[in-house]
Amino acid sequence: MRIGIDMMGGDYAPEAAIEGSVLAREALPPDTEIVLFGSKDLITGKAREMNLDISGFELIHTPTWVEMGEHPLKSFSRKPDASIFLGQKHLRRGEVDGFCSAGNTGAMLIGAMQIITPVSGLIRPAISALIPNMEGPDSVILDVGLNPDARPDVLYQYGMLGSMYARLVNQINTPRVSLLNIGEEEEKGNLVTRSTYQMMADSDDFNFIGNMEANSLFVSAETDVLVCDGFVGNIVLKEAEAFYRLISSKKVCNGYFEMFNFENFGGTPVLGVNAPLVIGHGISNSKAIKNMIIQTGEVVGSGLTAHIKETFNKQV
Amino acid sequence: MRIGIDMMGGDYAPEAAIEGSVLAREALPPDTEIVLFGSKDLITGKAREMNLDISGFELIHTPTWVEMGEHPLKSFSRKPDASIFLGQKHLRRGEVDGFCSAGNTGAMLIGAMQIITPVSGLIRPAISALIPNMEGPDSVILDVGLNPDARPDVLYQYGMLGSMYARLVNQINTPRVSLLNIGEEEEKGNLVTRSTYQMMADSDDFNFIGNMEANSLFVSAETDVLVCDGFVGNIVLKEAEAFYRLISSKKVCNGYFEMFNFENFGGTPVLGVNAPLVIGHGISNSKAIKNMIIQTGEVVGSGLTAHIKETFNKQV
Repeated sequence: MRIGIDMMGGDYAPEAAIEGSVLAREALPPDTEIVLFGSKDLITGKAREMNLDISGFELIHTPTWVEMGEHPLKSFSRKPDASIFLGQKHLRRGEVDGFCSAGNTGAMLIGAMQIITPVSGLIRPAISALIPNMEGPDSVILDVGLNPDARPDVLYQYGMLGSMYARLVNQINTPRVSLLNIGEEEEKGNLVTRSTYQMMADSDDFNFIGNMEANSLFVSAETDVLVCDGFVGNIVLKEAEAFYRLISSKKVCNGYFEMFNFENFGGTPVLGVNAPLVIGHGISNSKAIKNMIIQTGEVVGSGLTAHIKETFNKQV
Repeated sequence: MRIGIDMMGGDYAPEAAIEGSVLAREALPPDTEIVLFGSKDLITGKAREMNLDISGFELIHTPTWVEMGEHPLKSFSRKPDASIFLGQKHLRRGEVDGFCSAGNTGAMLIGAMQIITPVSGLIRPAISALIPNMEGPDSVILDVGLNPDARPDVLYQYGMLGSMYARLVNQINTPRVSLLNIGEEEEKGNLVTRSTYQMMADSDDFNFIGNMEANSLFVSAETDVLVCDGFVGNIVLKEAEAFYRLISSKKVCNGYFEMFNFENFGGTPVLGVNAPLVIGHGISNSKAIKNMIIQTGEVVGSGLTAHIKETFNKQV
């Protein structure tokens, strides 16, 4: 397995990416190759300064890269060889099996749509995240920001995508799928969730268990998959981030609350595109980068992308 | 000032309401009268059992009440003299100056629309809540559940309502109003928030300071008013509830995290109806009831309702 990583993305690039890659290599099986995309001179120079040996990595030189604050669409047309885009092109051609970046999220998503392209038969791809639970396994939440205006048929397909992720990556046999809503009863919610409930209630594609309210988050794993539009999902994640900041600042962190520390999560898999793509948090440090690479490996190894393609291509 | 309270509403009624009323009376100035609505026999009997003296309260007998799980619309037609509805009728006639209940929220809201009625000139009323901040005053968030499908013009008016609340009740001079969104830039968000941003940016009615993301919640008071639709606002509140449960279960509660304890909040004022109405949390204990009564007194004393009526009636 070959996993590509953007060395130039993230607030602490390339240092965090260099150290993260070295840490990931130590953690991954020896047949997993990590392929670095970025400026050769800059990366080798920094690695030397940091006293880290990167001679064992394949390093693919990219003359440019997308800055964190750069306009994604403009950089896509102006910098076709930026590390994010070149890495995705290698992924598209099968020269790596998965690709990840903690860089410009917009650029990753534009590449996801334009280079990797959405799976045919799927209305819209999604980005997902893991929600930690005090008891039981993590839950998958999607969408967390790609489609702030998702229609019921899109949310229905997110139920399918999330269910496949929970089964193949999180290894849960018959994942329970819930709709994030403001009441448990089927008539509760806004226009979109009320219609979505009706569609999901009749589903043979996944195991729909009903609405879930946000006060059931984090405690016990009441669901394996939580479906919402990208607006709501993004707010749920960012509110959790606010809580972690609060808890950290009060120094009450213990092992348990560390579950809210983004460093312990890999990143956000893009679900429903034609190859495995994982987006990391911009503020990723080396530990977060390491986990992002490992997670990309898990997604690749699970065969999730092939399964998603097979399922939705049939519907075309 | 006369404040009415529903003695029969809430999971711990009437005991919590009896004790809460006694505690509120001790805390409020002597010219504030608390008027109890509920079953005379039940309340006096329970008070005797609890060894609490309620002889100083005016007690208005109601032969029936709305149960917590009851269908609000059915109870509205079948039980016109239930404690919630009779209390609201007294409020409507000016026999009390404000009314509060920790009972059936749906019944309170139906009464708000049918008995108290929306302010003319306002498209839709809202329910609001206070968001605690580690540094600085609380922020007002609205809507937290009344309108899960709010349009841009409705959200614009919520900016007005929230600004009036922050100024008159929270006593902030020129309240800053933000739109809860998934990015700071004006082009971020869903269809509704993008249009709302445009309307708010041109506002002379309040001091709009832009979008705010959910990761800025709770830390420092970056805004005084946070506007969102009732779907999103309800999820934000319930996620905070989940965190409080989590923190409580881990016994790391200290003075600070107690700010997330609903007991310390009064309740949820209904904004944009023709008289002051406050809805408490169903699981309110006596301390929460006490704070709900005190908050109702604050809303009444602030002159907020008169100001809202004056502002919106002009627009008709």
